[in-house]
Amino acid sequence: MTYTLMSELFVRTLREDPADAEVPSHRWLTRAGYIRRAAPGIYSWLPLGLKVLAKVEAIVREEVEAIGAQEVHFPALLPREPYELTNRWTEYGPNLFRLKDRKGTDMLLGPTHEEMFTLMVKDLYSSYKDLPVILYQVQTKYRDEARPRAGILRGREFTMKDSYSFDATTEGLQVAYDKHRVCYQKIMERLGLEYVIVQAMSGAMGGSRSEEFLAISENGEDDFVRSPGGYAANVEAASIAAPPAQDYSQIPPAETIATPGTATIDLLVSFLNTAHSREGEPWTASDTLKNVVYMRVSPEGERTPLMIGVPGDREIDEKRLEAALSPDVAEPFNDDDFEAYPQLVKGYIGPVKDSTQILSGKLEYRTDPRVVEGSSWITGANEKDFHVMNLVAGRDFTSDGVMDVAEIREGDLAGDGSGPLSIARGVEMGHIFQLGQKYAEALGLQVLDENGKLVTVTMGSYGFGVTRAVAMVAEATCDDKGLAWPRNLAPYDVVIIIAGKGEELVEAASTLAQELDEAGLDVVLDDRSVSPGVKFADSELIGFPTCVVVGRGLADGVVEVRDRTAGTNRNVEVARAVEEILGEVRA
Amino acid sequence: MTYTLMSELFVRTLREDPADAEVPSHRWLTRAGYIRRAAPGIYSWLPLGLKVLAKVEAIVREEVEAIGAQEVHFPALLPREPYELTNRWTEYGPNLFRLKDRKGTDMLLGPTHEEMFTLMVKDLYSSYKDLPVILYQVQTKYRDEARPRAGILRGREFTMKDSYSFDATTEGLQVAYDKHRVCYQKIMERLGLEYVIVQAMSGAMGGSRSEEFLAISENGEDDFVRSPGGYAANVEAASIAAPPAQDYSQIPPAETIATPGTATIDLLVSFLNTAHSREGEPWTASDTLKNVVYMRVSPEGERTPLMIGVPGDREIDEKRLEAALSPDVAEPFNDDDFEAYPQLVKGYIGPVKDSTQILSGKLEYRTDPRVVEGSSWITGANEKDFHVMNLVAGRDFTSDGVMDVAEIREGDLAGDGSGPLSIARGVEMGHIFQLGQKYAEALGLQVLDENGKLVTVTMGSYGFGVTRAVAMVAEATCDDKGLAWPRNLAPYDVVIIIAGKGEELVEAASTLAQELDEAGLDVVLDDRSVSPGVKFADSELIGFPTCVVVGRGLADGVVEVRDRTAGTNRNVEVARAVEEILGEVRA
Repeated sequence: MTYTLMSELFVRTLREDPADAEVPSHRWLTRAGYIRRAAPGIYSWLPLGLKVLAKVEAIVREEVEAIGAQEVHFPALLPREPYELTNRWTEYGPNLFRLKDRKGTDMLLGPTHEEMFTLMVKDLYSSYKDLPVILYQVQTKYRDEARPRAGILRGREFTMKDSYSFDATTEGLQVAYDKHRVCYQKIMERLGLEYVIVQAMSGAMGGSRSEEFLAISENGEDDFVRSPGGYAANVEAASIAAPPAQDYSQIPPAETIATPGTATIDLLVSFLNTAHSREGEPWTASDTLKNVVYMRVSPEGERTPLMIGVPGDREIDEKRLEAALSPDVAEPFNDDDFEAYPQLVKGYIGPVKDSTQILSGKLEYRTDPRVVEGSSWITGANEKDFHVMNLVAGRDFTSDGVMDVAEIREGDLAGDGSGPLSIARGVEMGHIFQLGQKYAEALGLQVLDENGKLVTVTMGSYGFGVTRAVAMVAEATCDDKGLAWPRNLAPYDVVIIIAGKGEELVEAASTLAQELDEAGLDVVLDDRSVSPGVKFADSELIGFPTCVVVGRGLADGVVEVRDRTAGTNRNVEVARAVEEILGEVRA
Repeated sequence: MTYTLMSELFVRTLREDPADAEVPSHRWLTRAGYIRRAAPGIYSWLPLGLKVLAKVEAIVREEVEAIGAQEVHFPALLPREPYELTNRWTEYGPNLFRLKDRKGTDMLLGPTHEEMFTLMVKDLYSSYKDLPVILYQVQTKYRDEARPRAGILRGREFTMKDSYSFDATTEGLQVAYDKHRVCYQKIMERLGLEYVIVQAMSGAMGGSRSEEFLAISENGEDDFVRSPGGYAANVEAASIAAPPAQDYSQIPPAETIATPGTATIDLLVSFLNTAHSREGEPWTASDTLKNVVYMRVSPEGERTPLMIGVPGDREIDEKRLEAALSPDVAEPFNDDDFEAYPQLVKGYIGPVKDSTQILSGKLEYRTDPRVVEGSSWITGANEKDFHVMNLVAGRDFTSDGVMDVAEIREGDLAGDGSGPLSIARGVEMGHIFQLGQKYAEALGLQVLDENGKLVTVTMGSYGFGVTRAVAMVAEATCDDKGLAWPRNLAPYDVVIIIAGKGEELVEAASTLAQELDEAGLDVVLDDRSVSPGVKFADSELIGFPTCVVVGRGLADGVVEVRDRTAGTNRNVEVARAVEEILGEVRA
């Protein structure tokens, strides 16, 4: 091994931002010559990038092996059958890359490997004594994102660590889950990322526990909420507090009133404050119940109407709705649909008509948690230009249950009573998930228990985004000059810049490079025949943690040592340079 | 780090051969729990297999980095455009996995990455001063083989190291090529594989040099030839010696003779020996010229007839023909084709009819090297039941050039005059190839030379099969009990078997495992509650190089140390066991 010459390193830095750079990591990793776009959402790694990626991979491997996980490796090109058995071939929709081989056999590029791991354990194991086992791989994954963006932060081909736990009992699953939770905390700490662990969607998947590790980032795509009492959840999973049931004994009977030309909440509120003004307490949108209709479409294409009632001052959050319905999706209720369901009158939709609940039993009706028993609403009367007043939940109408999908606002109360929520953004780095028996059941993974009885295995799945980690560390540490790697992830420890002309400079720099290399550091010697200014700029752009300048000072027996992250610099005697730099790098 | 318990290692050995096992490597790697089939030609790697794969990868990386190659990483999922520019999108035919993304954009799974590397260098470099550069990756490759077989020896998803050299001059290319040649020799030596370097097809690709590194193996799919004088080539590339031109002054004029019912060479020869017997020298098949017609089909689908003349005692070797025609392919000349070319009479095809060369200029006619000027033949007269005698090459007919595609037989003379050929079989492990300017031209990779003039870059490509190497080492070292890894590639250095009952055995074995682990060895402790016989069989099947048996001898203060490859065993004092085993492993 020997040090690297900058003149030979396969890298070129760019002075301009790439046209499609939306986030700092993408901009800097491209400009500094770490990655290049090969196709939308698909990137090539240059030597500098690959070195950082390898370091992240090594950290992830070390930590998952520390909890006893064993490494395996599955193909990326997979047969359709197992994904058919779990229905994911269909459920994945257009996110799945599908292809046919030369014989016309359906195949796919693996987005995640639950099925394959399940089948492998089924192939090898048959007794509870074989369990528990945790298996993992570091592998290329494929997801055909609708809008690949943000460089490697959300690509279509990327590296993930995915592990899977197999246990005979739910207690065992809890142990494996907790191990991964601690493991991911260690990984996030070693990556130096500020993070939060948030509750993620799980209910729809069978009530098991699921948490995400989010790196906190303004540029993140994932909104999350947290409360002073320690509650944290991504917006999809967040639940808000339902107010207590209300006494409605004093509320007059429901009454249909004429509200001409009030097809929007705004128009309705202003009409109410004119024609039905309330003393000292003007009507607001939150007094109204807004009902939104969708067609709920199952993966198999079955379409059924779904009506959701939320306070009139709230919008439905499409992401929360999508998560709540998954694997079904919500499609807009179009004109044909309105024709097919004439009971629903656009602009005046409500749960009742002439005091009778409409389409009861045929139309799924869900309500916001705030629509508690006894709460009273003004809502559409399913007749053009008419609304119903004093419509009391539980007295005048019922719903098919709560669906907590309205937008969340700062100050909303957390569902667990831990106080008002604040909202921030992050990027999902890891996801730990108690799968339970879903996959084991679908694929028939059972073992004999102590009594010789077949029991279905209980599984967990745990993903960590390796490619994404490179982007997030870049993003968390970069500044307006470029990248600024933490020492444990930098592609090289030190760059030595020859700043000036003369054989002495070259000799002193080469000697220093040689000595640092022999001491075990990864060293680049910038020997290029460009100006010192270009070298300095490239050094800062690439983000070498330590930069040693061999220049004018050499005549006085000193070199300059710069710290990229701290932004500091100092002169060091040549004779002591190796020792000082080693101390700094290994601090 | 600590040692591995066999009871926890994710492995199960099989007592039976897998049904589809065609070669020993596939049989043993499956039975010993290294790999499992996920789909035809697509395999999953279990922990033992992955460890061997990683060791092979490490050797390959070390050796290619030693020649200055820099590691990069390209996607496996690639856009169509670059492969369109080089025509490989079409040329690859059904071997290429093609797919469309959600937007309908054509993509492919990379079978090899010449295009992407070329474009990357074009993106980054612009001057001769930037060159030379050698880049490489270790990557998953995809080829939709028609008949995936032999387990991981010829799969559809596999790991390859591919490197590419970029030079401004052909001298530079030669240097990069020679470096790779030496590098591959070192890799083959470190893998312990017996190998031969053979000339491979190159002529059709532009006359550049190309060689294959074949691991010699009876089960190999690649036939190769070698001569005592040092000539070695795969059968596709092998050329045989043309005899000297012959004096035909004494040969009578060509004459059409009636040969009723002689549509095969056998029938013809026996007819000739009856009706036209030659004194002292009976006619043989080698006196006849057999003409075989094909439709030559270009990647674009253009069909043109091709006739090949070979001595009647030879068959055309389909593989040699395929290689000679590539990227065109040969299809059988069917009845419709014969109808379209009535000049060709099935069973009686020849180059002339009534002394006139048939279809001259319209039909491509190629001849075996043995059809030298002056050689005289009996061949079809293009009339049912008639042949022509004394038809002299160069006098009575000419061909459009030599096509050396007849089967090669032991004893045929090497084309370079180095003597008679012998034939053996091997498996292609590596391929080094002087690409020249084909890709650089197609993709516009040019740099400025010393005079500021744009010159096209000269490239080489160099592949090495990493997955395949695991199979070949397994195959070269296995025996009738299972795998027997060389120490540098074994998944673990040592297995310690507890052979018997009693706490002392467990304690002694655990202590030994701990000590060997601390000394830096990879140790498995077989702690399972199965019989010693099962443990021994598994140990031999899995192929641990050293097996330490802690059993009855312990009472006398000894353990037994077995060497898997040598098949030897000896008793060692417990007190000296660590030292002895270390000595053996590190020998």
